[in-house]
Amino acid sequence: MLSIAQNLDEQDILAPLREQFYIPANTIYLDGNSLGPLPVAAKERAINVVNQQWGDDLITSWNKHAWIDLPRQCGELIAPVIGAAPGQVICCDSISVNLFKVLSGALRMQAGRNKVITTADNFPTDIYVIEGLKQQLGEANCELVLCEESDIEAQLDESIAILLLTQVNFRSGRLLDMQRITELAHASGILVIWDLAHSAGALPVKLDDCKVDFAVGCTYKYLNGGPGAPAFIYVAERHQSAFQQPLSGWMGHATPFSFDSAYTPVAGVKQNLSGTPAVIAMSVLEAALKLWSNVDMLQVRQKSMAMGEFFLECLKACGLDEEFTCVSPDAATERGSQLAFQHEHAYAICQAWIAAGVIADFRAPDLLRIGFTPLYISFEELWLAAEKLQKIVSGQTYLASKYQQKLAVT
Amino acid sequence: MLSIAQNLDEQDILAPLREQFYIPANTIYLDGNSLGPLPVAAKERAINVVNQQWGDDLITSWNKHAWIDLPRQCGELIAPVIGAAPGQVICCDSISVNLFKVLSGALRMQAGRNKVITTADNFPTDIYVIEGLKQQLGEANCELVLCEESDIEAQLDESIAILLLTQVNFRSGRLLDMQRITELAHASGILVIWDLAHSAGALPVKLDDCKVDFAVGCTYKYLNGGPGAPAFIYVAERHQSAFQQPLSGWMGHATPFSFDSAYTPVAGVKQNLSGTPAVIAMSVLEAALKLWSNVDMLQVRQKSMAMGEFFLECLKACGLDEEFTCVSPDAATERGSQLAFQHEHAYAICQAWIAAGVIADFRAPDLLRIGFTPLYISFEELWLAAEKLQKIVSGQTYLASKYQQKLAVT
Repeated sequence: MLSIAQNLDEQDILAPLREQFYIPANTIYLDGNSLGPLPVAAKERAINVVNQQWGDDLITSWNKHAWIDLPRQCGELIAPVIGAAPGQVICCDSISVNLFKVLSGALRMQAGRNKVITTADNFPTDIYVIEGLKQQLGEANCELVLCEESDIEAQLDESIAILLLTQVNFRSGRLLDMQRITELAHASGILVIWDLAHSAGALPVKLDDCKVDFAVGCTYKYLNGGPGAPAFIYVAERHQSAFQQPLSGWMGHATPFSFDSAYTPVAGVKQNLSGTPAVIAMSVLEAALKLWSNVDMLQVRQKSMAMGEFFLECLKACGLDEEFTCVSPDAATERGSQLAFQHEHAYAICQAWIAAGVIADFRAPDLLRIGFTPLYISFEELWLAAEKLQKIVSGQTYLASKYQQKLAVT
Repeated sequence: MLSIAQNLDEQDILAPLREQFYIPANTIYLDGNSLGPLPVAAKERAINVVNQQWGDDLITSWNKHAWIDLPRQCGELIAPVIGAAPGQVICCDSISVNLFKVLSGALRMQAGRNKVITTADNFPTDIYVIEGLKQQLGEANCELVLCEESDIEAQLDESIAILLLTQVNFRSGRLLDMQRITELAHASGILVIWDLAHSAGALPVKLDDCKVDFAVGCTYKYLNGGPGAPAFIYVAERHQSAFQQPLSGWMGHATPFSFDSAYTPVAGVKQNLSGTPAVIAMSVLEAALKLWSNVDMLQVRQKSMAMGEFFLECLKACGLDEEFTCVSPDAATERGSQLAFQHEHAYAICQAWIAAGVIADFRAPDLLRIGFTPLYISFEELWLAAEKLQKIVSGQTYLASKYQQKLAVT
């Protein structure tokens, strides 16, 4: 398997991109789907924004270093990665806060309908935000409907106001058919919000082509923007004049520096801004995002799918394919850029694997989740990771009490 | 005046704190009320959180470097600065977003009342957020009432649900009487939210003593947390069981890592968390906040008032006291830590002053705003700044076209 891996690495046209990241020595990082590693450019920008821009130029940097334009600038860098023409993406706040904005604004556009439908296995924030809005508006105005992933299409009728879906399931990695589902929803007059947390930077996303209405996403996973980096929001151009979100802070005003006492939202997607932008975080993110201008998302997808398939082969070669039950779809085309395996001891195995230098992650209650990030991971690393996993399982080293103890963040 | 200034500096017990900040050479910084300068400790932390914590330890830092605890940790560092016992302050999001949370949650607690009153001259975000909520809930559930600062007390009756005030007016610097106004409001059953944007770190704030209900504030001004640093939120302990905010993201869940599909808010102020915390920004902020453990807010207030008085003397000595109309209250005890002056050419004068090495700021339409930040500014600097201002005014250098041209951010 090693020579197969090395051969695949030799043919990998994305391999040179690895140099643009700091990957710690003796670490195989299979968790870029939780937190992307540090890009070299982001490190340099962090030092520059703190020392020169904040330290030396102080308040003048709002103009001098265009701090005020960072939300738009980051949005425009994200746009091509998710298939959006300019003027539709802005960077701000967290996914949770942005979801509240689009959900509120979209629901207002659906007078006479109150149902917001999402999947029962969606990432918690997506469901909680609907619950929060329901509590605020009352169930007559906002009703939460949960359905199974397999049942989405059957649920789409004219009683539904909003369909909120995450394109790639955070647990199983199942990839939903954005084009088909959006089209079906539109046929019933439903507005569709896609959460791109596990798809932006992981696979080609085609928001404009799929005629998506709204989207949100985070930048700290596959986009490598840094821990807790600002999120983004997409509002299709055709909705921008009708859409208005409720978190109307001064940065979403048409003329914030006139300090008017009446709120006049700025035209376009920028009205999703609320408070003062997170300058340091957004500067680091901007540097990380510039990397994508040289990346072909089709190549990323190709390598990502190949990595998933290769890792399954590695597990087989190590005799682990029955030990771990794969809960991700069989076909690579139906998966995002991750695989998830069920195992009674998933948590402890993950801890033991980390101790052996392979970082993957655990998702409650019993899933071991492995992310494939084509910009900086090699096939050889996947093989080495599988070998280490084999040792842990065969030696049952994960049974050591130090690996069983649950930490605050799992 | 120079020798008076030098004498005051010699007696200044806060003077040694200046060493904890980077203040650029040849710069007199009178704008710490817009953006605090870079603390030495914050610079070190920025490099550490990016290189070591993100770069080397990657995802394991959520536990290893207690990233998950940053919102609480920063909140507890802010608490004593604003007169709050532990367990009532949490750090998250922006003031605008936090205001939406407290306003929504507080209004829900006031069944039968719909009026939210604030001052017409309040900082725009404060007013806009009420407008946003009004639009979302309908005027029958949320009515915005604007009043003059001088008329607040007269407006407080039992028809009002919420009183939202900024303790120090961002333009005039007028300091409102938190104790008296809160007491009066409570007598009519009104819940009070204080915006501490211009008071946290500027003067002694006594939230608990004044029995304040809720407060929000930012950390990038007097608390020196960095551009766009995360804001904070205070919920008095007595309200924490009844209060529930609508931006319910996974970080406000009782057990975020169990990934339940039903939202159960965590007990206490922590339920104000919504999405993933901004780790880099909050780490930098935490380092900046640690500085306050050695600071006596009464000494800060004393020096701040002395600086305001001294600067007025400097203007007089430079023959500028009639050129600039002071719009701040006459008595130092009625002002926050700033002075504002009206001048037809305030914008251009501010630009020319910046070019001469003195950074103050302009607020539309015609105010020159000067901040006094006792941790790192000396009396000698105030005198030198006044002298430079005198030269600009007497030579009318501000009339040069380069100083007239308005930049994007004023």
